[in-house]
Amino acid sequence: MKMAELSRRSGTPVPTIKYYIREGLLPPGTRTAANQAEYETSHVARIELIRALREVAGLPVATIRDTLDAIDRPGGDRRDHLAVALRALSPPLDVPPDDVEAYERAGERVDAVLADLGWRVGHASAARADLVRAVVAIERHFPGGAPPDVLRRYARTAQHLAEREIPQDWDPVGAPTDALRYAVLGTVLFEPVILALRRLAHVDRHRRLRDGHGG
Amino acid sequence: MKMAELSRRSGTPVPTIKYYIREGLLPPGTRTAANQAEYETSHVARIELIRALREVAGLPVATIRDTLDAIDRPGGDRRDHLAVALRALSPPLDVPPDDVEAYERAGERVDAVLADLGWRVGHASAARADLVRAVVAIERHFPGGAPPDVLRRYARTAQHLAEREIPQDWDPVGAPTDALRYAVLGTVLFEPVILALRRLAHVDRHRRLRDGHGG
Repeated sequence: MKMAELSRRSGTPVPTIKYYIREGLLPPGTRTAANQAEYETSHVARIELIRALREVAGLPVATIRDTLDAIDRPGGDRRDHLAVALRALSPPLDVPPDDVEAYERAGERVDAVLADLGWRVGHASAARADLVRAVVAIERHFPGGAPPDVLRRYARTAQHLAEREIPQDWDPVGAPTDALRYAVLGTVLFEPVILALRRLAHVDRHRRLRDGHGG
Repeated sequence: MKMAELSRRSGTPVPTIKYYIREGLLPPGTRTAANQAEYETSHVARIELIRALREVAGLPVATIRDTLDAIDRPGGDRRDHLAVALRALSPPLDVPPDDVEAYERAGERVDAVLADLGWRVGHASAARADLVRAVVAIERHFPGGAPPDVLRRYARTAQHLAEREIPQDWDPVGAPTDALRYAVLGTVLFEPVILALRRLAHVDRHRRLRDGHGG
């Protein structure tokens, strides 16, 4: 299809598409004339993924480029694309020199909880780094910190969610492009839903306790 | 206490404390001499709250100022501080002119789910706006969208979490400063824990399904 058709089908203005190509987020089309190129259906899907990562996940262009690079890399195990894409989504664990001990303690606690659960997640996983960072922050700012039984309780909730979110018959190898897109989007797009509902549940619970209807 | 003591007790460098005062996040001390001021224990608590909001929640200084202003406002119902603080944490629902219909549909769906649950949350609640925004994004980018039964399932999970996170005997009126601090921090500090554990649970589930151990 031509650029105008790509713009119509993806619901994205031409200058935005040209910006994605310039920034290396979207592969250029096949040149058919000096001033014309041909685009594929895969371009539409890619634009939708870029827009979701920008507009929903709120990711900066550089992070999106890293995520897409990780996905596209031919050497990678495409079946492990979710772990790879999530790695690019999270900043690496940069430990401030003063905090090495706090991070080590938090890391040991996190690893013990993950081992208890028998989860198959790498030590270098980006989400593990997010979790360690969060535990350090809680230890520092919240009375009682984040003891193992609290982490285990949240982990069980997460596991329960994952089992319903990713159905038994989900085929990560079947349709690579779509599977990848849905895996990353399904994980990322529902994050604000979960946080917003938890905040609403907190407000509701505070009001009930205040008015003596804690039940 | 003097500035040096405030710095020591809060674990925060003097220039950072001065920056917080300059930016209006922290009230200045009581001047005792031309070049000296006296600070209270409340300053230590306030600095810890500011640092948690900056370093953990990653909020920009202007948002922290709005949040603290909302908390400090004398006319407000201090018992409703969580709702007020969360309102400042979330951007207002700015609906793009092209998307009015999509936002209205998503808003109606969200309100129907909240009414079903009997949650006492205002129509103007910031977390409701976050939820509507997220639902619009999902409708646009995710096959199947976010139907009411999916939203209700997440809401039940959130309610279950809130009941364990905010115990029955929690007293929102008892110790205003601490209660406020813990309410905001408890809500905000555990958000990255929940998201990180869900991402790890997704990676674990993908790997199990790939290797045929979905069980």
